[in-house]
Amino acid sequence: MSQNEINHPFDMAIRLTGEGDRYSGHTTEHYANMIGPFGGIIAAVMQKAILSHTSRQGDPVAFTVNYAAPISNGAFEIVTRLVRNNRSTQHWSVELLQQEHVCATATAVLATRRDTWSSTDLSFPEVPDLDKAVKVSGEGFPSWVYRYDIRMVRGGFPPFISIENEKAYASSVTLQWVRDEPRRPMDFPSLTALCDSFFPRIFIRRDRIVPVGTVSFTVYYHADADALHEAGDREMVAEARANRFFKNYFDQTAELWTPEGILLATSSQIYYYKE
Amino acid sequence: MSQNEINHPFDMAIRLTGEGDRYSGHTTEHYANMIGPFGGIIAAVMQKAILSHTSRQGDPVAFTVNYAAPISNGAFEIVTRLVRNNRSTQHWSVELLQQEHVCATATAVLATRRDTWSSTDLSFPEVPDLDKAVKVSGEGFPSWVYRYDIRMVRGGFPPFISIENEKAYASSVTLQWVRDEPRRPMDFPSLTALCDSFFPRIFIRRDRIVPVGTVSFTVYYHADADALHEAGDREMVAEARANRFFKNYFDQTAELWTPEGILLATSSQIYYYKE
Repeated sequence: MSQNEINHPFDMAIRLTGEGDRYSGHTTEHYANMIGPFGGIIAAVMQKAILSHTSRQGDPVAFTVNYAAPISNGAFEIVTRLVRNNRSTQHWSVELLQQEHVCATATAVLATRRDTWSSTDLSFPEVPDLDKAVKVSGEGFPSWVYRYDIRMVRGGFPPFISIENEKAYASSVTLQWVRDEPRRPMDFPSLTALCDSFFPRIFIRRDRIVPVGTVSFTVYYHADADALHEAGDREMVAEARANRFFKNYFDQTAELWTPEGILLATSSQIYYYKE
Repeated sequence: MSQNEINHPFDMAIRLTGEGDRYSGHTTEHYANMIGPFGGIIAAVMQKAILSHTSRQGDPVAFTVNYAAPISNGAFEIVTRLVRNNRSTQHWSVELLQQEHVCATATAVLATRRDTWSSTDLSFPEVPDLDKAVKVSGEGFPSWVYRYDIRMVRGGFPPFISIENEKAYASSVTLQWVRDEPRRPMDFPSLTALCDSFFPRIFIRRDRIVPVGTVSFTVYYHADADALHEAGDREMVAEARANRFFKNYFDQTAELWTPEGILLATSSQIYYYKE
């Protein structure tokens, strides 16, 4: 690992000390959200605790984080537990604590993959070249937004085309190019965080910021280490949409693709909203 | 609750004894799968342990089950833990054990919902009337298939239109009408199980049965108790598709709608496959 990588804001934010099943970390200002840290970085650091565990076997297949309580800026503890160790899969449970209270829980499935018949059913979205997309300015946003270079194709926030009535907001689809800023070769924790690099769908649908928070976030990985190596530090194609907003909760499903159209991950999450 | 409901095969399969955080249950032959029980009934019984807990507050918003090891037909224990109790949300962890080994873990978010601005972005699929769809015969399938009245619109297994080459299988989409058999008024556990009532996508894509097993299953609920009451015991519209099959794992996303087009739940799962 180069010195550059070690000092990348992402690596600083997921830095852990400790061993066995107990680790300590600290939030960083680089990934601050409106209140507390960016949810994607919390997911990434919880996954990193598993991936750096000496008992770890295989790569992530499924990862779910539940955000149980607000996380304060400052120190946190992570506790891992290998729930089940099978021949080609592992099941892990993880908790993130502050002042001995559980703030987030996660479960992870790791697997050793073998070559099989493979196929992608989902269509790669039509996306214009990077230089035809609109660069998102982080201005006025929390600092985590500056940690991603986002080039919006459609569904930005604030909307980059003036829209006069709610009808025009009937779609919550966002299509964007996105990469870590500064550039950083992709690995599983950064892929996890990238899956959370969208503005909450309700901001787009309501054309304003309303109180929101993810309560549960799931990523499925359709990539192995080779695929991530190929992806490298380049811009990825990312698409997200909501299915339903209903009485304080709305969902989001999203996909992350390489520029060549290889589907690296699909994700889903459900947000609390107040409106 | 009527005598009918108590003796419904679904209620027998999710029956639990015990109190506090420890419950005992037993698999039933009515929901047997090829090996062990149907995954949907395991999810349902784990959810039921939370919903019948005296500390339970609110209704399900998100529920994730990880299937960590094969479950044998026979007795099982369920252990619940209220991880975090907030003003309007609860976070639970659940484990299902056999012979003191963890076979499945689950996490649940419950919430007390309030009236808010609400909206459905996803389009209700065009679906022909029930009598124009093809009733699936359970013949040759494990007994859980008999516990659902499935009327296939497209993407059945085995395919109900003879298809000559793999090109025709390029889509793994299934659209079906489905309800509990016999009829049973919908509640959260039965909605959870219904979200798992699809044949594995790879059976459709490969036109044959291959070894599969769900490793992780997530349901997001877009309905409250009133919406489930309205849904009643009628046939629901259910749609599912895979995004990618890659080196032993493929995903599935699915939706469950009332006949009037109310989106009750969206789900995702990732399966192991051998091929």
